[in-house]
Amino acid sequence: GDMEEGVTSESSSLAGHQRLGNLVVLYDDNHISIEGNTDVAFSEDVAARYAAYGWHVQDVADSEDVNALRKAFKAAQAETDRPSFIRMRSIIGFPAPHLQNTGKAHGSALGVEEVAATKEVMGLDPKASFSIPDEVVARAREVVDRGRAAHETWETRYQAWRKGNPAGAELLDRLRQKRLPDGWEKHLPTYDADPKGLATRAASGAVLSALADVLPELWGGSADLAGSNNTSMKGALSFEADTADDRGPYGRTLHFGIREHAMGAALNGIALHGGTRPYGGTFLVFSDYMRGAVRLAALMKLPVIYVWTHDSIGLGGDGPTHQPVEHLAALRAIPGLDVVRPADANETVIAWRTTLEQREGPVAMALSRQNVPTIDRTKFAGAEGTAKGAYVLAEASSGMPKVILIATGSEVSLALAARETLEAEGTHTRVVSMPCREWFLAQDQSYQQTVLPPAVKARVSVEAAVSLGWRDFIGDSGETISLEHFGASAPYEIIYEQFGITPERIVAAAHSSLSKVGATHGSTTGN
Amino acid sequence: GDMEEGVTSESSSLAGHQRLGNLVVLYDDNHISIEGNTDVAFSEDVAARYAAYGWHVQDVADSEDVNALRKAFKAAQAETDRPSFIRMRSIIGFPAPHLQNTGKAHGSALGVEEVAATKEVMGLDPKASFSIPDEVVARAREVVDRGRAAHETWETRYQAWRKGNPAGAELLDRLRQKRLPDGWEKHLPTYDADPKGLATRAASGAVLSALADVLPELWGGSADLAGSNNTSMKGALSFEADTADDRGPYGRTLHFGIREHAMGAALNGIALHGGTRPYGGTFLVFSDYMRGAVRLAALMKLPVIYVWTHDSIGLGGDGPTHQPVEHLAALRAIPGLDVVRPADANETVIAWRTTLEQREGPVAMALSRQNVPTIDRTKFAGAEGTAKGAYVLAEASSGMPKVILIATGSEVSLALAARETLEAEGTHTRVVSMPCREWFLAQDQSYQQTVLPPAVKARVSVEAAVSLGWRDFIGDSGETISLEHFGASAPYEIIYEQFGITPERIVAAAHSSLSKVGATHGSTTGN
Repeated sequence: GDMEEGVTSESSSLAGHQRLGNLVVLYDDNHISIEGNTDVAFSEDVAARYAAYGWHVQDVADSEDVNALRKAFKAAQAETDRPSFIRMRSIIGFPAPHLQNTGKAHGSALGVEEVAATKEVMGLDPKASFSIPDEVVARAREVVDRGRAAHETWETRYQAWRKGNPAGAELLDRLRQKRLPDGWEKHLPTYDADPKGLATRAASGAVLSALADVLPELWGGSADLAGSNNTSMKGALSFEADTADDRGPYGRTLHFGIREHAMGAALNGIALHGGTRPYGGTFLVFSDYMRGAVRLAALMKLPVIYVWTHDSIGLGGDGPTHQPVEHLAALRAIPGLDVVRPADANETVIAWRTTLEQREGPVAMALSRQNVPTIDRTKFAGAEGTAKGAYVLAEASSGMPKVILIATGSEVSLALAARETLEAEGTHTRVVSMPCREWFLAQDQSYQQTVLPPAVKARVSVEAAVSLGWRDFIGDSGETISLEHFGASAPYEIIYEQFGITPERIVAAAHSSLSKVGATHGSTTGN
Repeated sequence: GDMEEGVTSESSSLAGHQRLGNLVVLYDDNHISIEGNTDVAFSEDVAARYAAYGWHVQDVADSEDVNALRKAFKAAQAETDRPSFIRMRSIIGFPAPHLQNTGKAHGSALGVEEVAATKEVMGLDPKASFSIPDEVVARAREVVDRGRAAHETWETRYQAWRKGNPAGAELLDRLRQKRLPDGWEKHLPTYDADPKGLATRAASGAVLSALADVLPELWGGSADLAGSNNTSMKGALSFEADTADDRGPYGRTLHFGIREHAMGAALNGIALHGGTRPYGGTFLVFSDYMRGAVRLAALMKLPVIYVWTHDSIGLGGDGPTHQPVEHLAALRAIPGLDVVRPADANETVIAWRTTLEQREGPVAMALSRQNVPTIDRTKFAGAEGTAKGAYVLAEASSGMPKVILIATGSEVSLALAARETLEAEGTHTRVVSMPCREWFLAQDQSYQQTVLPPAVKARVSVEAAVSLGWRDFIGDSGETISLEHFGASAPYEIIYEQFGITPERIVAAAHSSLSKVGATHGSTTGN
């Protein structure tokens, strides 16, 4: 069964390419899956497929032949330049007399009677439970002594290494404690106000390059979109089987190939191993392909980082197949996944800082392909508020907003433009930038209410994506500027205009929300 | 690049198994993807892999060798019992003098200068645009005559077939017009009230078997979970390369293997071909693996049906990896996908009926593993309202609800139980069953307001999943009974109890919502 899933194919092809000599896969080829005999859907030559991936392939004809298995494992261990694949023909449920070799043995327990019958076949007492022959117990307990001796040998070598390599030992201690080095954040870039601005993917790339020397634990790559995702640190070597520098095998840029699901799975594996901090990039729309792995990262609370660029219709000409519309909502639905969509270069920097400071749980960055203005932080609030998930970017001129515009990512600058118009007409307008809903909801209620005062019920959300979930923040009187359908292929300025993601429509939505609030007031005063 | 994606592996393995002799894949092996030379991530022997899948494999060493290609295509066409794979070594951008064989030729246009330079290399006038030699035009136009002659030959045979097979012709006409046969819906089962009830997956299976003879166009299968998804029609043959009955090759039960993404892609292909109505099943949680294909079905408005069972923590023991929590919200986020979660056997029947009557767009059924009570339709409203997406299942005893409980699927019976308690204490309570949000939002506003009167602001949503999106229906005063975290492994009754998806908590939520509504009233009267 496992051999049929695409993620296995992706991972195995990559493992062959990377010549992962330490990897041994035992393929339990029992010809049974839930629908019964696998020959209803599966007739390929799996061993030949693994040979095609560049693996060392062996065949064990009978899983009960322990000597043949032992020999195969020894040969696999000796093979250091290729991963090893051992195809072992087995019988599922062997030697249960009635249920072996059936789909039932895959999905259900054998049951009391069949267990007893099986014990009889094996020459064991069918009535005895949890009974293990003394000889087996004694043999198994030798493992304790063997392990203790191996550990002592290792410990001696380890302590000697620590003595001879104090810098390395210090680094290892820091990584084990998941501590960042003192003052690391001073290396982060900052950006001056710039109406032309910068794509947030470019700011993200600048962060990675700035941290390359400061955080040796940070590494990652892309599913064949490094140039588009800006995931390569300047000057970093590729992680390839034959890449080395004077320290030995080394490389920090991973090339996953066009294998998003394997990338997600590999990031999980790297995070589970510990010691380093991995990231992986692709287009936001392709997060769909790796969703299974993202879910597992969230379930296991792994500190994996996704760099998902081209985060909206703003990517332009590639059209609806490449334009994420539902993905922000669909990702926010995953418990424990933080989805961050920074508004400009400085929010991107703080988003990375906050992410790296989190020791637990995956973070997904949704970054723009197109340039977005670098917001004037002398005029508006600093980007520091990004760490709290949402903050008052632009206060109403009166200090008492009549309406609040809540925007994320590339739409924040549109909200700022709408605020100009609204303020000019005398409608006191606050703009809240909300790069990360999850971080905001983790703040205490008093902070949340400072940003979104319950008394201000006229609200507009602005995000070039489906509005699902926004009602929680805008309330019954709120309006959404959103996109409830798929995108289209055109330069992004035209798409935004045609689909009504514009300052003019934000202004109109603000008026509409204000009139709803007014109507409510009206009705309660008895008109 | 395409050869690296898991879905290609899944599909190709399945195509080999199915011996799809009509399929010819031309592999444009140009060694270039977006990150440049594919050797950074890809070093497998692709042709050997396809041979392992059971394909007929050929090699064309030079894509400019037209005669070799022609010969390979002829051999591929002659091969009727295996799909054919032609690996063709090519140079991307050939013969552009500066950009051939680079990653740039993959992602960007050549530009005016390089186009001119390429024309020069090819012996064409670099200044002429849209200029085609007369000889080429004349040759290309022969296609028109060839096509007309081929069409005439085909049309004569087709008309002869219609005359000789009036029943077949009538069936073909019906399928082309996407019409269902008169009276087909009379074959659908109905279910009497039953407190023990039936799993909605079982009711779905009964629908399929009931329709097997009535709708010959309906067919499908599962990604190795047929027994769990109840996707096999009683007595239907498997669709396998060598399956036939007296009419020739035939089979209606597809065995996709554990290849969810390929299943989704194959369903799209079958729907695009037209003439039949395909469905495919797996566990709801594994919809993640096929999300890319589901999105494309929605984008292309294909009438594909997903049978996704084990739709909540109610699946019990398999635990959080198998328990969908975020999936309903994540799927509702996809524009154009209808997500239907019926409450009992009779809603399941109407859900299928409504789905089959829709000619356009994918529908996803979310079905329970566990039994759910078959609601007493003599006491409560009939299941017919399912077709409208939401309906008043149980009216408040007074006819004037103080609070509305909105529930879906297996949680509807919990809402009915909560209503008993609330009514007993004098709180007039309406229960709305909302199996399909998209169908409900397609109704006119007056129907929507009949079901959810704007004046009744005390509302509770009940769904064993994340609450994302529910605020749109419950409003500012509403409460949600939901699950904002991953599940757990235990018998489902215990999980529901532990996670607070119970009638008692629904009652408490109703009180809370009522008090919020009261508080609002209070404040507006000046207290």
